[in-house]
Amino acid sequence: MRAIRKVAPGPGLEMAEIPLPVPGMGEVLLQVKAASICGTDLHVRNWDPWAAEHAVAPLTVGHEMCGIVVGHGSGVTDPPIGTLVSVESHVVCGVCSWCRTGKGHLCPETRILGVHRDGVFADFVTVPAANAWPDPEDMPLSIASLQENFGNAVHTVSVPEIEGRKVLVTGCGPVGVMAVAAAKALGARSVYATDVSAFRRAMADRMGADATFDASTVDVVSAVLAVTDGEGVDVLLEMSGAARAIDNGLRLLKPGGEAALLGLTSRPITLDIDDRVIFKGATLHGIVGRRLWDTWYQMRALLRGGKVDLGPMVTHRLSLEDFDMAFDLMASGNTGKVVLFPDPTDADGPLYRP
Amino acid sequence: MRAIRKVAPGPGLEMAEIPLPVPGMGEVLLQVKAASICGTDLHVRNWDPWAAEHAVAPLTVGHEMCGIVVGHGSGVTDPPIGTLVSVESHVVCGVCSWCRTGKGHLCPETRILGVHRDGVFADFVTVPAANAWPDPEDMPLSIASLQENFGNAVHTVSVPEIEGRKVLVTGCGPVGVMAVAAAKALGARSVYATDVSAFRRAMADRMGADATFDASTVDVVSAVLAVTDGEGVDVLLEMSGAARAIDNGLRLLKPGGEAALLGLTSRPITLDIDDRVIFKGATLHGIVGRRLWDTWYQMRALLRGGKVDLGPMVTHRLSLEDFDMAFDLMASGNTGKVVLFPDPTDADGPLYRP
Amino acid sequence: MRAIRKVAPGPGLEMAEIPLPVPGMGEVLLQVKAASICGTDLHVRNWDPWAAEHAVAPLTVGHEMCGIVVGHGSGVTDPPIGTLVSVESHVVCGVCSWCRTGKGHLCPETRILGVHRDGVFADFVTVPAANAWPDPEDMPLSIASLQENFGNAVHTVSVPEIEGRKVLVTGCGPVGVMAVAAAKALGARSVYATDVSAFRRAMADRMGADATFDASTVDVVSAVLAVTDGEGVDVLLEMSGAARAIDNGLRLLKPGGEAALLGLTSRPITLDIDDRVIFKGATLHGIVGRRLWDTWYQMRALLRGGKVDLGPMVTHRLSLEDFDMAFDLMASGNTGKVVLFPDPTDADGPLYRP
Amino acid sequence: MRAIRKVAPGPGLEMAEIPLPVPGMGEVLLQVKAASICGTDLHVRNWDPWAAEHAVAPLTVGHEMCGIVVGHGSGVTDPPIGTLVSVESHVVCGVCSWCRTGKGHLCPETRILGVHRDGVFADFVTVPAANAWPDPEDMPLSIASLQENFGNAVHTVSVPEIEGRKVLVTGCGPVGVMAVAAAKALGARSVYATDVSAFRRAMADRMGADATFDASTVDVVSAVLAVTDGEGVDVLLEMSGAARAIDNGLRLLKPGGEAALLGLTSRPITLDIDDRVIFKGATLHGIVGRRLWDTWYQMRALLRGGKVDLGPMVTHRLSLEDFDMAFDLMASGNTGKVVLFPDPTDADGPLYRP
Repeated sequence: MRAIRKVAPGPGLEMAEIPLPVPGMGEVLLQVKAASICGTDLHVRNWDPWAAEHAVAPLTVGHEMCGIVVGHGSGVTDPPIGTLVSVESHVVCGVCSWCRTGKGHLCPETRILGVHRDGVFADFVTVPAANAWPDPEDMPLSIASLQENFGNAVHTVSVPEIEGRKVLVTGCGPVGVMAVAAAKALGARSVYATDVSAFRRAMADRMGADATFDASTVDVVSAVLAVTDGEGVDVLLEMSGAARAIDNGLRLLKPGGEAALLGLTSRPITLDIDDRVIFKGATLHGIVGRRLWDTWYQMRALLRGGKVDLGPMVTHRLSLEDFDMAFDLMASGNTGKVVLFPDPTDADGPLYRP
Repeated sequence: MRAIRKVAPGPGLEMAEIPLPVPGMGEVLLQVKAASICGTDLHVRNWDPWAAEHAVAPLTVGHEMCGIVVGHGSGVTDPPIGTLVSVESHVVCGVCSWCRTGKGHLCPETRILGVHRDGVFADFVTVPAANAWPDPEDMPLSIASLQENFGNAVHTVSVPEIEGRKVLVTGCGPVGVMAVAAAKALGARSVYATDVSAFRRAMADRMGADATFDASTVDVVSAVLAVTDGEGVDVLLEMSGAARAIDNGLRLLKPGGEAALLGLTSRPITLDIDDRVIFKGATLHGIVGRRLWDTWYQMRALLRGGKVDLGPMVTHRLSLEDFDMAFDLMASGNTGKVVLFPDPTDADGPLYRP
Repeated sequence: MRAIRKVAPGPGLEMAEIPLPVPGMGEVLLQVKAASICGTDLHVRNWDPWAAEHAVAPLTVGHEMCGIVVGHGSGVTDPPIGTLVSVESHVVCGVCSWCRTGKGHLCPETRILGVHRDGVFADFVTVPAANAWPDPEDMPLSIASLQENFGNAVHTVSVPEIEGRKVLVTGCGPVGVMAVAAAKALGARSVYATDVSAFRRAMADRMGADATFDASTVDVVSAVLAVTDGEGVDVLLEMSGAARAIDNGLRLLKPGGEAALLGLTSRPITLDIDDRVIFKGATLHGIVGRRLWDTWYQMRALLRGGKVDLGPMVTHRLSLEDFDMAFDLMASGNTGKVVLFPDPTDADGPLYRP
Repeated sequence: MRAIRKVAPGPGLEMAEIPLPVPGMGEVLLQVKAASICGTDLHVRNWDPWAAEHAVAPLTVGHEMCGIVVGHGSGVTDPPIGTLVSVESHVVCGVCSWCRTGKGHLCPETRILGVHRDGVFADFVTVPAANAWPDPEDMPLSIASLQENFGNAVHTVSVPEIEGRKVLVTGCGPVGVMAVAAAKALGARSVYATDVSAFRRAMADRMGADATFDASTVDVVSAVLAVTDGEGVDVLLEMSGAARAIDNGLRLLKPGGEAALLGLTSRPITLDIDDRVIFKGATLHGIVGRRLWDTWYQMRALLRGGKVDLGPMVTHRLSLEDFDMAFDLMASGNTGKVVLFPDPTDADGPLYRP
């Protein structure tokens, strides 16, 4: 079968023919129908320090996907053959104290598809049956694929108290934009968003932001104070990993406010703990992955309940063969989600033509 | 009456005669029976940058006290004349959104006794009636005085989930030591504590720590891992404000753990948000003051319920006249609480003799 | 001034001339601009057993209102003269453990306007300044008046976890209908409602219910299971006080579900604790009044944030002089909120013509 | 092997020889070392209406046990052969929304050992590997056996907020008595308990109750008010299932209090929802089983942390052969836990001699 591979440590990816994987005990074999690109995939392609430290090679990359169950490993009967499923990319141990108490997203033994084991940019992939999440038959494939990424947004939004609150989202990459939509759907009073990219701010506007600000030209603190009667916000959803965004976001937090931090800073940052955290009695929540499996049920509620429409998030559809162009598009910053289709006739919208 | 005064900006304190204050509308006049020294008072005495920025002068210093209600301002009938009361030193506005929703400790209009308005190292003081907390008649005066400081500890302990948890307290000043006792009383499985001072570690041991470590000579991370089966702790109570203690404490936090931060760092610190907060899904709580008035009710439960004995915390009793010696003792670091008595015959234990 | 009075124990109300009240210490004098009728007012008018036990006479009735601050008692400066305010009808002591910890709605000393002290169906009324909630100048008077009642709905909705959940509202009186709207605005996945009145079900539909059911002709359990894939609901908001509605609602609750109970049953009911509560690990929350003052801030978020439009709730506007007709309309069950205007030229919509 | 069997529907039990069970996929084979008797076992022995409805026959009874792992079904490697384990008696599906979100105790597919599938009063039993909880090697066998029952107590105590609270336990069967101990260990300010049996009240006293009351001769409401300054309690832990105990307990609950209901009432009861729940803003929590697996980790903290000593709970040790006498003892009400040993030389204390 075809697979997009990191053949050895170092930059670059290539398409290769590799043997069809065989599902082990407790696993399913999936035929990939759609697979979307995430920022992590760019790190692996570039083999930056994070990737060099965390990823293995050789490796099939990619971790966001949907597909059809086409084989069962031993002991597996569910989901049945033929089921459309999305995939949770974090493979957890199932027996540690975190896994056994509804906190599997914190499992220290987590193995990630496309980082620690073969991923989903391929014709087929094997995953634990527990990681295959059945979707409605009529869910568009691109949306089924990007659910995994949507889960990061939903997880972030679900941790602080959001009902009736004023919310600031710093960073309008796909997760930030989806967080805007989720926050509005889950009862936020108003949602403001910042980004340096006009394209991304426009995405945030389209997905429901009450106002967006260009962090490169506007004094974000003044701008957000101006739209919040000088009060600031109750909740910060930090998606950028930028030290300045974190500092500004915490400045804008009202006393007693909550910040959910998802964006990785890549390096230690300088933080005024006294004024940004202690004196204002703020709470900071580190967010990783999706809550297993609360977040998936929350996504189901948002999507099936019609409260969030992820359609506008999918800006580019390409054939798996065109993965290089797809990665370049994603790297440009001027995209929503970029989705690959192993069989381009499966595309649920027009294919991208450069 | 006598009062310990900061007569003008700059270092030093002196005892002065000033007029008896008159309680305003909603206030009570208190005769001070005992008053304990806090680290904040040392800052004001030294007139360090924090004090220069926050405190006013002229000013009567001190904010931890108990006393007897001896006068009522207009509109006040409670607590009745003759009642022994402890004092909450944060005077809040009562009408902002925080005050009106049980979060008065976050009131932006907070005025602190001995910092923003005349404090308690004096024969008499006026405070809002709402800030006078009735004590049992038989409560020792020194303990009634230090309740306010105990409240910092109880507030810190009450924010993370503590029941059945392994807890690390970094910093064994009086608040840290009292946090050890409160954590044990409120169901912590085990409490470990660190400090560079042998005197303070001994205080922590005496108040119930399962083990204490000398942060100046021991690798705290290794030491705490060794006593926790290599797991680390569920909860960090940070009382030192030291960047290294914060870093070590967060390193030791298990995935999903909680840190309550009370110790002020004085300056911005460098923090590895990715590894210390995000990847481990940690939660950081900034802690300021006491919850108004939940913390006071919690203290009542701990003290009247006999779950915490603060007696050993009081290591030095002096006459108010000996305030200079008392401040020097406190500054040495080798004390628990140092308590001043305007009338030394009120002392509930032997007076300190150098 | 004019006031609608219960002159002595027994049924009936009459309009009387009484002296203008004088605001005491801490109180404001309000000129009533609009006042809406609540079910409680009907109880007082009828002098049923509940009223005979709880209400005093002579008494000016009514407790939902908005008005203008026209006088200050001693010690009061806020809200300023001329401010449009809504009124919280529960006058609490301010000093008990509940009042001091953000749970004033549970104050054992609660005195209710129009029940325990003179109410708002009058030209003027005095209330504690703390009970006067400033409104935006452009808020329609009828909506400003019914905020107090909306608060019951918002309080009920805010107690269980509502985000992304399937919700059942049993009982579509005004509070039930407003709970439908609040639940949708605060992120409920879907909201179903039951009532025996077609008029009230139509109100619920209009305010956003996903489906409504006639409890008098439909098997509610089957009907709700049919629209929830046989699963039932996550949350029950019980507004009817009917034993059968409670039983059906708890039957429909999924394991681990939450029920918020606002509707009074008037007499003890029979309940299968084992099957309805214990085996399903359900949680039942008793709901009384509005959280002081969290609920008012939540209302502000919903109304100013444009998340709920209460306009359709106001179905009848009448002059205060026509109070008897207004009470009869309210008693018919075929109304939303019925609002009285002391000065009919203040009406923010056409006056009702029979 | 030997097993205590219900051979057919109807009263009675007998010891029989049956084939050694074979562990299926995902299961372990355990050699039973100690097994304790629970009230449920008495129901099954008597074949009362509950048992007739829920239990199957033929059946090996019993569900509380510890034992040694002596065999692995396919796919199992943990816990290793030779490990001492306690058993969680609720076998859950692992794939429903409850199991996947840390709420496995609410799994609708729950099968209980000794009720729905063969239980533990036998020489050997098979259980899912996930239900085998490794114990420290030096844990006394009787305590390892009764952990499952302790879990009911710990679960009940862990649901309401218990830190610093006044607590009432109604019903001092083994679970009630262990709840007294757990509540004290987890920070309750004071714990009061009621029962009609002097033996059981003495057990509660021994395990840490601040005061106990004879519900058959004392006015419990007056008695508890007398020891709580007339305030009542913050938390009710209801273990009796008696309608009067529930009513008294809820009467004694302070406004805003929480009740955790574990005791089954067997039949619907009459409850004054208005006065007992709504007006006081009370919260009622139905409690079933143990939280999977939070409760087991909490037990580990309490037992390994030395915060609870369950030793006094074990009042009778008998050989498995003497099961009839053991059941009679348990039925008398004058016991703590009664523990059976398949090999009487394993007994960790003197065997009972009548």
